[in-house]
Amino acid sequence: MALIRSVFQDELDGVSQSLVDLTEMVAASILKATTSVLTCDLKLAEEVIATDDHIDNFQHDLDARIIDIIARQQPVASDLRALVTALRMSADLERMGDMSHHIAKISRLRHPEPAVPQELVSIFEAMGAAAEKITNKTGIVIATRDTEMALEVERDDDEIDKLHRQLIGTLVDPNWSHGVETAINLTLLGRYYERYADHAVSVSRRVYFLVTGKYA
Amino acid sequence: MALIRSVFQDELDGVSQSLVDLTEMVAASILKATTSVLTCDLKLAEEVIATDDHIDNFQHDLDARIIDIIARQQPVASDLRALVTALRMSADLERMGDMSHHIAKISRLRHPEPAVPQELVSIFEAMGAAAEKITNKTGIVIATRDTEMALEVERDDDEIDKLHRQLIGTLVDPNWSHGVETAINLTLLGRYYERYADHAVSVSRRVYFLVTGKYA
Repeated sequence: MALIRSVFQDELDGVSQSLVDLTEMVAASILKATTSVLTCDLKLAEEVIATDDHIDNFQHDLDARIIDIIARQQPVASDLRALVTALRMSADLERMGDMSHHIAKISRLRHPEPAVPQELVSIFEAMGAAAEKITNKTGIVIATRDTEMALEVERDDDEIDKLHRQLIGTLVDPNWSHGVETAINLTLLGRYYERYADHAVSVSRRVYFLVTGKYA
Repeated sequence: MALIRSVFQDELDGVSQSLVDLTEMVAASILKATTSVLTCDLKLAEEVIATDDHIDNFQHDLDARIIDIIARQQPVASDLRALVTALRMSADLERMGDMSHHIAKISRLRHPEPAVPQELVSIFEAMGAAAEKITNKTGIVIATRDTEMALEVERDDDEIDKLHRQLIGTLVDPNWSHGVETAINLTLLGRYYERYADHAVSVSRRVYFLVTGKYA
């Protein structure tokens, strides 16, 4: 019985490690997507677009493994909750990969024109940096179940929301001079970063709830 | 044993019925959200915004029930897959409710101005009607596991994507005369309808996969 329990524990640890791996893939993806947008790098954009399939497949395999563990080990109470939560976290992380993919597609669509006008580069640099930071923290939250860091992720999300509002404020300013099409693309880019961060918050909240039994 | 099995079957049927109930709540929500946008109806917008909490709570309770069934009944193979799929469908449906909520918030934000200029009313009427149709079909797909209708949902989504492209085409037209702020709001509205329909497709695909073991 001790042996069976230990195999099960190894399987749970393996799931947790795969979620961390997925987070690292997503972190690489958002970094490249941001760089491609800010430097008009078509090759990087194509790389992000191609990598998204890889992320989807990784998530798909992880989910199959989690369901298989539930079927074989028939966990109850906290172990079952942890596995169901892992399914939800993998869905959030996969969706973060989709957001990088969408960002890269706008970069590719506008190439060789820059998607972001010069005066907005600093906002998108800040959003990209915040998105990368929030992803790295999310990986640590998954690996260590650090509830303090889970709360930090919430605060980092507030930062991204603030940048997002600043972006929209610039677009609707009467002095906006880059036309409607650019404004539309920037609206979508802003929305993708915002959603990206929301999913990171969702992952952290799920860990927080698993550990404390309370909502953050 | 036959009795236990029958109780379990009742529980599975109950989950399926709750997913149908959730679909009906979401259908009512998107209909009201569309009407509020097209008729500048602030009261309806407020109603959609208030109802979203109700949808979230319903989904929350349903998920708790599903996890409890997994813990008590320890299902394997196809029953376990059906229950895990139910968790994912409830997440999709909850997210559709969020999209109605976002649409209603734009209606409220612009009130007493109309969010949609007169020449775009027909596109949004068509998107709203398609969203309602796709939701009703999704409810039938969940209730009956009709795979033909699941494929119809895919085709209805193509229709919404076509309307969405037509919308963006109008916004980026050099003759666009309603300014950047309206264009931004319409971009977001279009995105919300598109995402709404994507989640309906996701639900139908999950049912299709459960029934056939193949991807639609």
